[in-house]
Amino acid sequence: MANFRVALKKVVDDSYDIQIGYQLMDQLVEDIKNGLVPGIRKFAVISDSIVAPLYAEPVCGKLKQAGYHADLFVFEEGEKSKVRKTKEVLEDAMLAKEYRRDCCVIAVGGGVVTDLSGFLAGTYGRGVPFINYATTLLAAADASVGGKTAVDTPLATNLIGLFNQPQKVYIDIDTWKTLPRRQIASGLAETIKHACLADREFFSYLEEHLEEVFEGNRSVCEHIAEANCRIKYEVVMKDEREKSLREVLNLGHTVGRAIETVSDYRLLHGEALSIGMAAQVTMGASFGYISEEDKNRVIALYKKAGLPVTIPDYIDREELVKKLYTDKKVKNGTLRFVFQKGIGQVMEFEGETYATPVTEEKAREILFAMP
Amino acid sequence: MANFRVALKKVVDDSYDIQIGYQLMDQLVEDIKNGLVPGIRKFAVISDSIVAPLYAEPVCGKLKQAGYHADLFVFEEGEKSKVRKTKEVLEDAMLAKEYRRDCCVIAVGGGVVTDLSGFLAGTYGRGVPFINYATTLLAAADASVGGKTAVDTPLATNLIGLFNQPQKVYIDIDTWKTLPRRQIASGLAETIKHACLADREFFSYLEEHLEEVFEGNRSVCEHIAEANCRIKYEVVMKDEREKSLREVLNLGHTVGRAIETVSDYRLLHGEALSIGMAAQVTMGASFGYISEEDKNRVIALYKKAGLPVTIPDYIDREELVKKLYTDKKVKNGTLRFVFQKGIGQVMEFEGETYATPVTEEKAREILFAMP
Repeated sequence: MANFRVALKKVVDDSYDIQIGYQLMDQLVEDIKNGLVPGIRKFAVISDSIVAPLYAEPVCGKLKQAGYHADLFVFEEGEKSKVRKTKEVLEDAMLAKEYRRDCCVIAVGGGVVTDLSGFLAGTYGRGVPFINYATTLLAAADASVGGKTAVDTPLATNLIGLFNQPQKVYIDIDTWKTLPRRQIASGLAETIKHACLADREFFSYLEEHLEEVFEGNRSVCEHIAEANCRIKYEVVMKDEREKSLREVLNLGHTVGRAIETVSDYRLLHGEALSIGMAAQVTMGASFGYISEEDKNRVIALYKKAGLPVTIPDYIDREELVKKLYTDKKVKNGTLRFVFQKGIGQVMEFEGETYATPVTEEKAREILFAMP
Repeated sequence: MANFRVALKKVVDDSYDIQIGYQLMDQLVEDIKNGLVPGIRKFAVISDSIVAPLYAEPVCGKLKQAGYHADLFVFEEGEKSKVRKTKEVLEDAMLAKEYRRDCCVIAVGGGVVTDLSGFLAGTYGRGVPFINYATTLLAAADASVGGKTAVDTPLATNLIGLFNQPQKVYIDIDTWKTLPRRQIASGLAETIKHACLADREFFSYLEEHLEEVFEGNRSVCEHIAEANCRIKYEVVMKDEREKSLREVLNLGHTVGRAIETVSDYRLLHGEALSIGMAAQVTMGASFGYISEEDKNRVIALYKKAGLPVTIPDYIDREELVKKLYTDKKVKNGTLRFVFQKGIGQVMEFEGETYATPVTEEKAREILFAMP
């Protein structure tokens, strides 16, 4: 009997910058010239069918103009593309074009594109660097910080994936002008959630300036993009110490994710989240975690953003209750919810946990009573 | 324009133990009881159709007996199973049995099982811990150190995967008794390669004690298992500093991998490597990197292990030459080989590189002249 120790302790620096601004493509090419990804001359630009002609093609073109090798890899837009099959098809296309370990992935698009591309980059050649060029408010709010990349499977959302940090993130607010109003609203759902869980002042700011986001007001959009990064970063960083803090980002997602799935993606992620947040404050109010007044303010802000706060007719509420059990916070078969404490904080429960058990009875009561 | 810095610098400790011994299943269960994977009570035991009834079922049984939740997930044995589809089927089976983030994967088998399971564990729930219970000499030689996990695709071997370190590796030498002679020989191919590239004394030891491996001599088997871990560890550790040192492990693999693919896996990995090593010393001798005498010693040792050192009739040598270009060492369309320097060292070329360009003409000349 013998024992062999493999000692593998090391310092890892995954730090990166998020640049927030207008028309950042030239900046991207400049950064690459200046050594953002040293030694790499081959770029796989990944995008979806909507974003590709608008922004990914220009990125590809500018890279070629600068003397780099670049190819565009496009998949069908939509949440339904965020699956293992799409990853496989993209991998094979990259292999066919002789991409090996010495390449860099550039994701140009929203959350689906950045999630899928970050995961692909993490396993391509056992990991190649990647850069996110985020073109939606939702990606700016959700996908820029945290390093979560994943795909969906028939039985679970976001369960197959990696923690993988990009080399840099660009949030090009100029691209929001081509977003349909519905998509901007969907992005605002996560933004309002961030305000609810961490920043009462930012919540008031949103109440005041919401319409200006749709109008593309520059300073408002920049302020919102920054606040999203800051709030998410604070939570994610603290989570290095407190393992469960990250669960607060899941606020409103217990019902939100379930309704998104039951709607078969007729609802956008932000729309489903909006309904989930309405359910969360309603349940929270019944427990006394939030006042009736604050509850109404939250629901009113989601409504003001043009987001749904009632359960659509086509949703089978009994199925919705069942679907709650696929939530990743479920422990030993028990539902667990995160709740906001008034506006700007979250409830903390015994033992530094932020998700607390809720009976199926209670969940059913709330969901069936909701408009 | 604003810039937001995401600071993510931290110390990562991926250290782990390799235990080498006889019948280590009880030790495995004991280690889990003693906190090898703290807080985890659910184990996905992954194995192939040959190893499952022999060793994975008992592992599963012992875990259940100890009060843990354990399920066995089995796939068809063979290199052809090391593909994305198998990973997907296993993931779906685990999801159907409600495995979430709070589980641990135990791989019981040879290199295909440990490579595939390590990759699966790395992306399941964005990473769950895994343990390797290696049941072949090849897995002991090749898969225990280095953290390389991967699957094959139609266009590339081992290109989609991860660096992912196990919690612990068990090398149960007792399991070698159920290995066919052909499998033991295949495992010895990597062992002899290790001796060739790093340890002349160990090479002599192998010349002397080779037959005792087949007889299952305890101290010889333990010595070999340890030497494999030690040599590979030294190379992998140094590679943290010298990026290209790891390429030396690729000795003999330029032709080896190509012939393995062209044979459509009729040749086992070790058999293909043996032919690749014969090609490597033959080419090396023609360049003066190794003496005729040492070249003959290397070929003789592979022969003594019962491994092929000539190119089988069914191999189309022209196709073999073409296939060389799929090697991961190819740079800017040029073939690159690693060569041993006599026995026990590797050739080092300008600029701290270990792989040197070889013309297609030269490669063709050697491959067509080989018996």
